[in-house]
Amino acid sequence: MDLTDLETPALVLDRARLASNVERMRSRLEALGVPLRPHVKTAKSIDVVRLAVEGQPGGITVSTLREAEYFLDHGFSDILYAVGIVPSKLPHVAALQRRGGEITLILDSVEMAEAVAREAEALGTAFPVLIEVDSDGGRAGVAAGDVDRLVEIGRILAGARGTELRGVMTHAGLSYGCRSAEALRAHSEQERSRAVAAAEALRAAGLPAPVVSVGSTPGALFAERLDGVSEVRAGVYMFMDLVMADLGVCAEEEIALSVLATVIGHRRDLGYLLVDAGGLALSKDSGPALEKPGYGRLWDAATGLPLGLEIASTNQEHGLVPAGDGDFRRLPIGSQVRIAPNHACMTAAAHERYHVVDGGSEVLAVWERCNGW
Amino acid sequence: MDLTDLETPALVLDRARLASNVERMRSRLEALGVPLRPHVKTAKSIDVVRLAVEGQPGGITVSTLREAEYFLDHGFSDILYAVGIVPSKLPHVAALQRRGGEITLILDSVEMAEAVAREAEALGTAFPVLIEVDSDGGRAGVAAGDVDRLVEIGRILAGARGTELRGVMTHAGLSYGCRSAEALRAHSEQERSRAVAAAEALRAAGLPAPVVSVGSTPGALFAERLDGVSEVRAGVYMFMDLVMADLGVCAEEEIALSVLATVIGHRRDLGYLLVDAGGLALSKDSGPALEKPGYGRLWDAATGLPLGLEIASTNQEHGLVPAGDGDFRRLPIGSQVRIAPNHACMTAAAHERYHVVDGGSEVLAVWERCNGW
Repeated sequence: MDLTDLETPALVLDRARLASNVERMRSRLEALGVPLRPHVKTAKSIDVVRLAVEGQPGGITVSTLREAEYFLDHGFSDILYAVGIVPSKLPHVAALQRRGGEITLILDSVEMAEAVAREAEALGTAFPVLIEVDSDGGRAGVAAGDVDRLVEIGRILAGARGTELRGVMTHAGLSYGCRSAEALRAHSEQERSRAVAAAEALRAAGLPAPVVSVGSTPGALFAERLDGVSEVRAGVYMFMDLVMADLGVCAEEEIALSVLATVIGHRRDLGYLLVDAGGLALSKDSGPALEKPGYGRLWDAATGLPLGLEIASTNQEHGLVPAGDGDFRRLPIGSQVRIAPNHACMTAAAHERYHVVDGGSEVLAVWERCNGW
Repeated sequence: MDLTDLETPALVLDRARLASNVERMRSRLEALGVPLRPHVKTAKSIDVVRLAVEGQPGGITVSTLREAEYFLDHGFSDILYAVGIVPSKLPHVAALQRRGGEITLILDSVEMAEAVAREAEALGTAFPVLIEVDSDGGRAGVAAGDVDRLVEIGRILAGARGTELRGVMTHAGLSYGCRSAEALRAHSEQERSRAVAAAEALRAAGLPAPVVSVGSTPGALFAERLDGVSEVRAGVYMFMDLVMADLGVCAEEEIALSVLATVIGHRRDLGYLLVDAGGLALSKDSGPALEKPGYGRLWDAATGLPLGLEIASTNQEHGLVPAGDGDFRRLPIGSQVRIAPNHACMTAAAHERYHVVDGGSEVLAVWERCNGW
């Protein structure tokens, strides 16, 4: 089967680029001496993650309990669920424990620490827990430096029968807003130092904190040292995307993921062409530049190399591409293109499966995804 | 089962509001004397569409061949595929024809008219076709007033054995940018008059044009007359959304669709709370106001009434909601909210099923969707 045999839109994954991205992260973390706990929220595919871990199931990170269930079914038992837990999800977590899953939870409040401890006793189990620390004011977590609150939560978790305090985790999500290698390095060091400081504050209070978990793709690739860190989480590195390329984390030609589309119209009168990949197939993620949004860049369908064209706007099943005379000639109606995604996690989530190529246009495999909740 | 029993995020559909929205469109089009060909791209659910057509399968509009296949399997045979056709999709269309589907195609170029006619002969079939007309410079179609091109395409379709010219269709998508009832009325009249003019130009050239298909939810609800129009397509009217509410097409309390979410964190220090519905569950559609994007407004989970709070930003599984002291008190960590969507089509597409309520919080049914391609 060839890409030209596929009905569009369809998701394409280049295995050679995937393997190269995986190797880059592996060698970088090997140099830093810290193990990787890959975040599978981008790939949501056992085939992709098996390749990422080189066939050796170790710890992974998930963003949904459906991912946890799916990867547990495929032999991964050491799972960090990296979204703040709430009591209503604990029966599901307990069910995964009974099937052999070692599911570590995260939380950042006294209320949740007490609620999880209480619910665990009611369920007749105990949950390993990390305290989420906010290293950059970006989202969730105990504010960096708020040692009183951190230790208060730690004491509850360490003292209750239903919870086991394992340490701390943080995600320096504002790294995606950095605009230079220097800024990325500084942000990564801030994430590291604040996570380590939180773990040390727990230890100073006589509490256990063996786990110091940090992570993001730019953080991992730009870190100059990771002293005191016990594991790194990263996910988008497997595929990369235009956000990462614009950050300087990768080249556009290293992006492994794309959406195959067909040119369905020429508006020579208005200066654009239309493709059959719109907001649904590409996602409406506009990338970092809200003031000048684009929704993906066009590649040659066969080679996966940039054409210098961009999706300027989308409807549900239409993408509009500003184009000139030469473009209308090289991309006749009915011809295929591939579209590099702004944000790989969002684009991939619209699709049920990957069509795997290896540098060319032959489809070598079809890999399923576990979407939804 | 109650909403409080669901794991979040989950899609919720209020049947009472759906029924009311359906009745509003039915009575409006009855008054205008034009039949509805509902667009099922928003709902993608046989249960929703059965309710919308009051149990009487008639013509529908689809945005994917998967929808065509799914609705054909459920008794709908008269189907308009309202995305510009390309030859690679014709074998699939022909397969649906062999199963009893009467699939009408659209195109807007000489090249595609010739290619479809050629491919139809190779497949041993013939396809009914509408010529797409661009009534507002918004997307695809033969430019309004370009009679030469319109008639050239019409002659090819009418003359070939593999195609049957049925008439014209248009979608005045720029109506979503109108900012007053007066502007919506004028835009609707422009759509009507240009579609009718295109059909008359075909007829004046001796070509058949029994079908004059127009449509969008604002266009249908704000049209003052539809003389010369043979059918109206609309889809989002079933659910409505914040884009429609901001246009003045509906009240926020008439929106039938929402995403159930759980409060997973309080950042009193930074003035926001976190919910477990992020970019994936809500979509990254920022609504019409790119300069000040919001990603959905919060409702009370039990009543579906507005709380006066909004999702200001999203990550994959996190939504951030600016909040004050009173909000932290009324929405404790672990409590549920519902989130009204910016764009119902995009938000619903992230979910596999609807959890159906009827004004309250009891889940009366679970309805599946046909996502993807």
